[in-house]
Amino acid sequence: MKLVTLTEIRQARSALPSIVRRTPIVPFARTVPEIGHEKLHLKLENLQVTGAFKVRAAFAMLQSMPPDARARGVVVMSSGNFAQAFALAGRELGVSIAVVMLASTSSYKVEATRALGAYVDLYDGPALQRQRRVETLAAERGMTAIDVWEERPITIGHGSIGIEVVEDCPGVEQVLVPVSSSGLAAGVATAVKGLNPKIRTIGVQPVRANAAYVSRQHGAPTAIDYWETIADGLSARRPGEFPFAHLQAHLDDIVLVDEKDIGMAHVVLKRRAKVIAEPAGAVSAAAFLAGKVDVTKKTVAIISGGNLTPETEATLEKLAAARGQSS
Amino acid sequence: MKLVTLTEIRQARSALPSIVRRTPIVPFARTVPEIGHEKLHLKLENLQVTGAFKVRAAFAMLQSMPPDARARGVVVMSSGNFAQAFALAGRELGVSIAVVMLASTSSYKVEATRALGAYVDLYDGPALQRQRRVETLAAERGMTAIDVWEERPITIGHGSIGIEVVEDCPGVEQVLVPVSSSGLAAGVATAVKGLNPKIRTIGVQPVRANAAYVSRQHGAPTAIDYWETIADGLSARRPGEFPFAHLQAHLDDIVLVDEKDIGMAHVVLKRRAKVIAEPAGAVSAAAFLAGKVDVTKKTVAIISGGNLTPETEATLEKLAAARGQSS
Repeated sequence: MKLVTLTEIRQARSALPSIVRRTPIVPFARTVPEIGHEKLHLKLENLQVTGAFKVRAAFAMLQSMPPDARARGVVVMSSGNFAQAFALAGRELGVSIAVVMLASTSSYKVEATRALGAYVDLYDGPALQRQRRVETLAAERGMTAIDVWEERPITIGHGSIGIEVVEDCPGVEQVLVPVSSSGLAAGVATAVKGLNPKIRTIGVQPVRANAAYVSRQHGAPTAIDYWETIADGLSARRPGEFPFAHLQAHLDDIVLVDEKDIGMAHVVLKRRAKVIAEPAGAVSAAAFLAGKVDVTKKTVAIISGGNLTPETEATLEKLAAARGQSS
Repeated sequence: MKLVTLTEIRQARSALPSIVRRTPIVPFARTVPEIGHEKLHLKLENLQVTGAFKVRAAFAMLQSMPPDARARGVVVMSSGNFAQAFALAGRELGVSIAVVMLASTSSYKVEATRALGAYVDLYDGPALQRQRRVETLAAERGMTAIDVWEERPITIGHGSIGIEVVEDCPGVEQVLVPVSSSGLAAGVATAVKGLNPKIRTIGVQPVRANAAYVSRQHGAPTAIDYWETIADGLSARRPGEFPFAHLQAHLDDIVLVDEKDIGMAHVVLKRRAKVIAEPAGAVSAAAFLAGKVDVTKKTVAIISGGNLTPETEATLEKLAAARGQSS
């Protein structure tokens, strides 16, 4: 397998249209006296257009396709944020988009996807079989099936975040990134290590949604037969083969956070950083705030998205209160 | 009265230390189809250090003082955000700070101010007499009394936001700014009109905290004998004399928003822009979202701060629901 290179990531980043935002990185003080001497910095992909990082990879994917394939349209699967991302990129580039979403996905994400002009196919079969439904739908409609876990341009597109982290946060020593199918972590770790091999790259997963963590123990992509977390954006039961190879090459570690850590991080970010992180987007900050990583290093936590329902927000508040940290 | 000049604002902006953030400006789509063609942009001073814009003016004020006055320390009054701002600037510049705060101020703001090393004097007399308490305390402690409504460097410091708005949002046609004692609007309008007289500058006040609006009708600073709004950061019962003169020279209009508009704006910013605005910080976006200004113009709304209690947040949610717009 030929791994993604920094050069490919740089080229894809340059090709991104201006609708894709270079999101800000802001320092975050854990305590009032720490203001001005912050170790933790937040890369706010929740302020990205569509409220999550995935629009970068959606554009990189569609831009990489030949004109005839673009003319036929594409089918992708998504637990939510990729749906809006492909819908927007398709609208901007004139590519028809169909998305297979889980029937359990929040209505907010489904409606936003439809409003951007995409066709939504709600699927309620086994999570690991979703890609088969994508292929069936593509055959029916004469479209190209995209496997968002395995396509090279997806990892390349995600990597654009890593370049921005290193360029916009001088002296960064450690980067924390949420891990689901592993594409985001693969792209970011590749870019960061390519720019500076001394920067530590650390993935973060919920304790009961830790397929990449288990896979690293086994040395190969491995499926888990459980999945319990509030972080609906981290829905992968196993890592993708292609991005996992990049984790093995470029990721220093994966750490785990529990549900109360996620709730606490969401509440702390809201009360003190003044931003809304969805639970999947909060796990990186949770790892730092719960002391799961070295907190003496200058750190960037990628806050990958901010799309959540009021019901999820209420549950996060309860988890935080149960942990004994509500402000 | 010699009005503040663009040159003074430019100089003060250059002198700001790096702890003062150049806050991001992000586009905000009112509807999903509007994504990519946004008219409204948010200048996120709620992501400023201390969670509000006032740190700019606090540094500009202390930096303008002669060394002997700085050595004696200063006393200021604050409804909350200026307190943390002066406390931080004082800590960074080695100036002792005492703050007169209303006894009704949220405990969050009081504790944050103390944690930054400032002395807090809680005052529960009439709002318009607070400056007298500042002067008494200054005499007792041998410190310099700062009138944050009338000091020239305050308006100059606030103006730094106006420069960033024009530089970072090319083609901006309209700037919306919350108005209380009028210092922020004075500085921003002076900078914006100095850079481009064609850009419209519009102040925003709550219907029942509209002293600057009434003052413009009278042509002179005028006190109101009522004050009812959830926007505790907009506590002025009359505009300052010095900043009001700048409003008369450089502000095109003041528009009013009601309490439900403020609640709606807070909730919309939280759900869709993924940021937390305190009610005073949400009034500018409220004016746009409620259609109180020309919504066809490329607009920047200054989201001036994000410091609020969970109780205030809950009240804002209720106001938004009462307006019939909860997402």
